[in-house]
Amino acid sequence: MEQLAESYHYASVHLNGHGKREVGMLKRALEQVSDEEPSDQYGRGKVIRQFEEKLAGDLGKEAAVFFPSGTMAQQIALRIWCDETGKRTVAYHPLSHLEIHEQDGLKELHHIEPLLVGEANRLMTLEEIEALPDIACLLLELPQREIGGELPSFDELVAISRHCKERGIHLHLDGARLFESLPHYQKTAAEVCALFDSVYVSFYKGIGGIAGAILAGPTSFCDTSKVWKRRYGGDLISLYPYILSSDYYYELRKDRMQSYMEQAQSLAERLNAIDGVWTTPGVPVTNMFHLHWNGDAETVARRIQVAQEETSIGLIGYIVPKDGYCSTEISIGDAFGKASEEEIDRLIDALVRL
Amino acid sequence: MEQLAESYHYASVHLNGHGKREVGMLKRALEQVSDEEPSDQYGRGKVIRQFEEKLAGDLGKEAAVFFPSGTMAQQIALRIWCDETGKRTVAYHPLSHLEIHEQDGLKELHHIEPLLVGEANRLMTLEEIEALPDIACLLLELPQREIGGELPSFDELVAISRHCKERGIHLHLDGARLFESLPHYQKTAAEVCALFDSVYVSFYKGIGGIAGAILAGPTSFCDTSKVWKRRYGGDLISLYPYILSSDYYYELRKDRMQSYMEQAQSLAERLNAIDGVWTTPGVPVTNMFHLHWNGDAETVARRIQVAQEETSIGLIGYIVPKDGYCSTEISIGDAFGKASEEEIDRLIDALVRL
Repeated sequence: MEQLAESYHYASVHLNGHGKREVGMLKRALEQVSDEEPSDQYGRGKVIRQFEEKLAGDLGKEAAVFFPSGTMAQQIALRIWCDETGKRTVAYHPLSHLEIHEQDGLKELHHIEPLLVGEANRLMTLEEIEALPDIACLLLELPQREIGGELPSFDELVAISRHCKERGIHLHLDGARLFESLPHYQKTAAEVCALFDSVYVSFYKGIGGIAGAILAGPTSFCDTSKVWKRRYGGDLISLYPYILSSDYYYELRKDRMQSYMEQAQSLAERLNAIDGVWTTPGVPVTNMFHLHWNGDAETVARRIQVAQEETSIGLIGYIVPKDGYCSTEISIGDAFGKASEEEIDRLIDALVRL
Repeated sequence: MEQLAESYHYASVHLNGHGKREVGMLKRALEQVSDEEPSDQYGRGKVIRQFEEKLAGDLGKEAAVFFPSGTMAQQIALRIWCDETGKRTVAYHPLSHLEIHEQDGLKELHHIEPLLVGEANRLMTLEEIEALPDIACLLLELPQREIGGELPSFDELVAISRHCKERGIHLHLDGARLFESLPHYQKTAAEVCALFDSVYVSFYKGIGGIAGAILAGPTSFCDTSKVWKRRYGGDLISLYPYILSSDYYYELRKDRMQSYMEQAQSLAERLNAIDGVWTTPGVPVTNMFHLHWNGDAETVARRIQVAQEETSIGLIGYIVPKDGYCSTEISIGDAFGKASEEEIDRLIDALVRL
């Protein structure tokens, strides 16, 4: 498996992501910033205020707060809605980031009980949401990353939002990949966010920054989130390395999501044509999809490794064993556009042949 | 008060700190790093591992973990010692960072009860520590920042450490300014840390980096701290902006602490000679001290502002009203060494005269 990672790393062309995560990414973002630009100071100062105000505007919310991570921002959002409603239960998808990637931070730090809605391998439905007991908050992730990046229809979102409002359930958007979802909906970020009480967005997925997150919502919600940010140790004296790079890559890439999605669709179509290979979704609705391969992971990894070494074109760096097949994730970014049609042909040919 | 801050900001020479906190600080630290240096990835990778190993070595501990902040690192340290002992009580100074600067994070996130040891205006004593009930952990801060940076004698530290060991109380070092304390003790960091079970050090006080902290201790303690770091949302995909700058400024300044201390002593002596002015400690034992001025804060601020404007030499940017006097903090760093004797004379003269 390490050899697969190496064959990807040393390929001269990549189809996945924005390129390598290297220090040069930060240096490029800082190049256009004056040496004399003052640091933010514990959440204050021009550099953080301006970015927060811009994102509050773009997301159509009263206020926004910059956080070092989405993990921190979302636990805090759910805690605030719990405290406001006096309830201790929230609901989210069985494969939510909070459930599988945060070492149970929500339970350990807040003693909040999550209800898992629907089944792990598909989106939750309006009917399942209607069947929920009284809870403080429902968290929806757009797109649902762990199933390949699926999206409910906009009409379904509107119906979920209306239902939650009627029931007094706060609706929170896990928008780690919100910008990546907008081309499918043909909506602005503010139009999608208007359906939610609070929103988190990330700057290192499709945006491709270093790290960092924005939590947006009503002013009083954001003010309270700053108190929790201090409690968590997230109110650093200087967050500007993440803020300046988030801003730089946001401006660079936020309008490229349509093209990333089309490239994902085109690549998925070609991969689906290979025997024993399929993607979920079958036709991607964002820049991402999951790629599955019949057979055991070791054999498949070896086959892809050889194809990557032979062509010096990198598709994936890891693959995870499943039941009779194996899976990986593709996220299209700036790298794909640098590969020629001929190079993509060569890699596909090698994958078919080997 | 804003005019005092401005007169400090626009002064051409400063006696306090390392210079302005500006983006250039980060750029300078990155200049000697290759663009191709890979990012750390969620706590893994060469850039974070090497720094953690170096600091574990320098602090004489089995292991070390890089954290975005000391707030996060120390709450986690206390939580781990509580879990290990099955107790819910810890003890620290009444003006500990945990008590006055963290919005009660320890209580709100962990339901840990702190006992405040001794009185706010002085160091805690061995007798007071001996009188403590059974607790999980005692946190000692070296130097005690909020009283001007005082230090217990090394013999007292040894006695406290021995007592805690006998009683089964874990001893944690809040070493936000540990490196600044070493010249007074004439000890290495490892010699001081050997008295403690766990240690936190900061990289943006005397070291003058951007942000970031190291938590060091036994390997199992550090492994558990990584789980909590994930829960807190502190296990960022990339911490390298803080790690690389921490490393750069640590190497640049860790051996300058003796000279900062001597400069602080010399400046304090001159300030103490002004009528109605005194410092705590009277003779600084680190690079820092608190500076007090008889009279009401508005009048004193105006007087210092005029002196700073007249000389274009900056001493302080704020002053806090107390009962019949007012106070501020001085931390000597690289800036002081750039001021000439004649410039310091001029400022002192102006302060005396005005």
